[in-house]
Amino acid sequence: MNDGRMIEIDKVGVKNIKYPIVVLDKVNGLQHTIATIDMYVNLPHHYKGTHMSRFVEILHTNKSLINMKDFPNILREMKYRLNAEAAHVSIRFPYFIKKEAPVSKIESFMEYQCGMFGSMDATDKMKEFIVSVAVPINTLCPCSKEISEFGAHNQRGITKVSVRFKRFFWIEDLITIVEKCASSDIYSILKREDEKFVTEHAYENPKFVEDVVRDIAETLSKDANITWFTIEAENFESIHNHSAYAFLERNNIAREPDKTDEKK
Amino acid sequence: MNDGRMIEIDKVGVKNIKYPIVVLDKVNGLQHTIATIDMYVNLPHHYKGTHMSRFVEILHTNKSLINMKDFPNILREMKYRLNAEAAHVSIRFPYFIKKEAPVSKIESFMEYQCGMFGSMDATDKMKEFIVSVAVPINTLCPCSKEISEFGAHNQRGITKVSVRFKRFFWIEDLITIVEKCASSDIYSILKREDEKFVTEHAYENPKFVEDVVRDIAETLSKDANITWFTIEAENFESIHNHSAYAFLERNNIAREPDKTDEKK
Amino acid sequence: MNDGRMIEIDKVGVKNIKYPIVVLDKVNGLQHTIATIDMYVNLPHHYKGTHMSRFVEILHTNKSLINMKDFPNILREMKYRLNAEAAHVSIRFPYFIKKEAPVSKIESFMEYQCGMFGSMDATDKMKEFIVSVAVPINTLCPCSKEISEFGAHNQRGITKVSVRFKRFFWIEDLITIVEKCASSDIYSILKREDEKFVTEHAYENPKFVEDVVRDIAETLSKDANITWFTIEAENFESIHNHSAYAFLERNNIAREPDKTDEKK
Amino acid sequence: MNDGRMIEIDKVGVKNIKYPIVVLDKVNGLQHTIATIDMYVNLPHHYKGTHMSRFVEILHTNKSLINMKDFPNILREMKYRLNAEAAHVSIRFPYFIKKEAPVSKIESFMEYQCGMFGSMDATDKMKEFIVSVAVPINTLCPCSKEISEFGAHNQRGITKVSVRFKRFFWIEDLITIVEKCASSDIYSILKREDEKFVTEHAYENPKFVEDVVRDIAETLSKDANITWFTIEAENFESIHNHSAYAFLERNNIAREPDKTDEKK
Repeated sequence: MNDGRMIEIDKVGVKNIKYPIVVLDKVNGLQHTIATIDMYVNLPHHYKGTHMSRFVEILHTNKSLINMKDFPNILREMKYRLNAEAAHVSIRFPYFIKKEAPVSKIESFMEYQCGMFGSMDATDKMKEFIVSVAVPINTLCPCSKEISEFGAHNQRGITKVSVRFKRFFWIEDLITIVEKCASSDIYSILKREDEKFVTEHAYENPKFVEDVVRDIAETLSKDANITWFTIEAENFESIHNHSAYAFLERNNIAREPDKTDEKK
Repeated sequence: MNDGRMIEIDKVGVKNIKYPIVVLDKVNGLQHTIATIDMYVNLPHHYKGTHMSRFVEILHTNKSLINMKDFPNILREMKYRLNAEAAHVSIRFPYFIKKEAPVSKIESFMEYQCGMFGSMDATDKMKEFIVSVAVPINTLCPCSKEISEFGAHNQRGITKVSVRFKRFFWIEDLITIVEKCASSDIYSILKREDEKFVTEHAYENPKFVEDVVRDIAETLSKDANITWFTIEAENFESIHNHSAYAFLERNNIAREPDKTDEKK
Repeated sequence: MNDGRMIEIDKVGVKNIKYPIVVLDKVNGLQHTIATIDMYVNLPHHYKGTHMSRFVEILHTNKSLINMKDFPNILREMKYRLNAEAAHVSIRFPYFIKKEAPVSKIESFMEYQCGMFGSMDATDKMKEFIVSVAVPINTLCPCSKEISEFGAHNQRGITKVSVRFKRFFWIEDLITIVEKCASSDIYSILKREDEKFVTEHAYENPKFVEDVVRDIAETLSKDANITWFTIEAENFESIHNHSAYAFLERNNIAREPDKTDEKK
Repeated sequence: MNDGRMIEIDKVGVKNIKYPIVVLDKVNGLQHTIATIDMYVNLPHHYKGTHMSRFVEILHTNKSLINMKDFPNILREMKYRLNAEAAHVSIRFPYFIKKEAPVSKIESFMEYQCGMFGSMDATDKMKEFIVSVAVPINTLCPCSKEISEFGAHNQRGITKVSVRFKRFFWIEDLITIVEKCASSDIYSILKREDEKFVTEHAYENPKFVEDVVRDIAETLSKDANITWFTIEAENFESIHNHSAYAFLERNNIAREPDKTDEKK
């Protein structure tokens, strides 16, 4: 059907569809999870509407394995099947990692919200490809520690890192980078000896949201595989009913021609 | 219209309507806020459907003032206008209280989620009337404090108290009872001297979720105006990605015939 | 540690923990999904606190398979490991069913929110055991159809059914009962011929929220395996910014001594 | 305190604070509402942390009136009080408009989620200033209407418009533009005669999400006060469990030097 309004639409498609997917798991090979997915294409001005059913058809066909390597194929298929010049996909999913408690070594699963976001333009190459992880952490306030006779307020926070990158990497490794920059990482099971360790470790590593984003930025800026990143740290302040927040965006492009990295 | 399935429906009506309301304010007389409201009546088996539009008409007419005294009138009007034997209303709203920081005395608003829930049966009397407050607090873990050389994990928590009662009371007073049972109450603005005070005060008043519900229960069980209560404390644990939780329900009915209370 | 306040706590434990689980699948045997879980026990008045870490330990050990038959074992283990007289578990999870479009027969996954809720008391028997499903459906308004020259407003709704039961049943079958009582069930993929079918089918089967709960109640009240049920239908009205809602609760206890059922 | 990591932070401050505010109301002069607010400044590399308490102090002082004209003053005060080169504020709030039903003329309040988003840089001028409205509407599917013998699926949708602009405008007028581009606008109270009108009006004005964003774009592109806009339409599909979505972004900059507009 033709449309006379002469207005191209940037993105049209399906939003917030829940679908079972399988992702790569560094330890176990594969992990079953459940994604929340948006899939859009552009719509040239002369078309009245897109074919909504084809998005989920493509998703259903490709559902068996969502990974960084095959992600561009989904976008390419969307462009082809929907006769479009641009395609956009967002896939968010919880990812579980088995973690050992720091002293007792007891095992439990921790949940991390992860995501892949990609856009493809007329060239059939990825114009944008971002992977993100959201990592729950503990932060202990340096100011509170400094000014108080004893104790220091601390709280759960969520730190989200999004990256553009050159080659495949394991999201487990990005999560580890974030956890290392917290006052303490957090766990699903802690026995008494673990709780003592985590409490003291956090007290000895006080961090503002400002420190968290800076420490992660220092690490990522040395990573030749990361060409761009954003870091946002949100603390669910234990002494307030609102969050403390810090955000930082950086290009690592200056490091692009670093040939030594390629030799590794 | 008649219905032949011979099935009475317990509750039918409108759910999750947002509406501007005015509630009583202990300090300022009145407070404008925005409510999320459910309104239901029963539907006898011979009626095919209720009159959905009349619920919001009643709400619109009564919106000028929602308070404990006039609340039963809304239910009575629902029964009358909808020709029903039972009526149920739930009104949840954020309520703001101006609070002074503990040392600097600087003022700011704190938000508390409050609610009124009522049911009326064929007798035109309130069969159920509950008022609730949800109070964000700070809790510091007694175990973590005890076993650690220094520091103690603490976090924001939400403690919700629901009560049945004999006579009008100020929700401000119920909120104060909850805040007194926390490791520390929390604030929208804290200057350095306040942060020191709050940090040290929390460290000197460690509380499990178990302690929070018990301390509040001790206070409420001595209140002759409260005939029944539930208390639930949820801690957004700073060392875990899940909550610690405690819940307690009590009748104060044994205290009902306490004549000395009535003389006050 | 002892506590002197002489106050027993009804429920204490962990809330809103996310964990990977495996549930039974009528077609495929097993299905991987992700649960949101609460686990509580009672706490006698003389104990100061419960052992929070043991809940997740029990969960981690039992995670491999959550089903109606083994569910009581989790509660029994909680009572034993936590030295408690009562235990409570709530497990909510998305469940996916592969569905064929009504005409084209094209396949896609539909998501249903399901849950298991159980309580065990001092007798080591289940005091409460409820299974629930939340089914997204289409409802077309009978009143709108009747009074309008053409068209009728319709919308997505969620109908939630919770049941107590005698013997194992497939949640797939309970979902089918709900979908049959809608104006139309809904799908993740519909081709043109399917969309025509669904539109016309809904127009020929107009349903109020009142009709949806009554039709399901009629079916469930004839099911000898169901001893009690609640049904709630919520319509996200397409002509309003709020929901229409109906709720109904019934005991099927009168049918309990039906011996012929036992012979099956 | 100094920081040696040499990393400037783009945004640091408070997030998701709830605060009572007063906004301009075209009919009544003023409207009390409750905002969710983020306030950030940049942090030069040599500072260790920002002064979190000052954000809420500024908010508390300015809370009496949030409007397009005074909005830049909040940002200027943030820069000054926090010694920063850039400031960012996001204020989201529900806004209620009294609406007459189309035939019965009965009155009720409709809720619209609105927002103001601004950034100021070193020049003390607004670098970015966006006002947004989210309008719940009814959309009836043109395809479903065309291919079906009778009826057509329709649903509630939310259409969000964000604009950059030259001079003050009433958000009521932007909301009206969106509602005119829907299959039908929606209401909190509709009597039978209104429901007939709305049902038939929607059937006669079928709209895809694509049509909604294009129709609004046509109107806004002729508005000389609007220099840039985004439009996103999301339909909570009544035949699917996911949304249909369309998004469009446009500059109106070509029209900037249009002197005739100024004469109006």
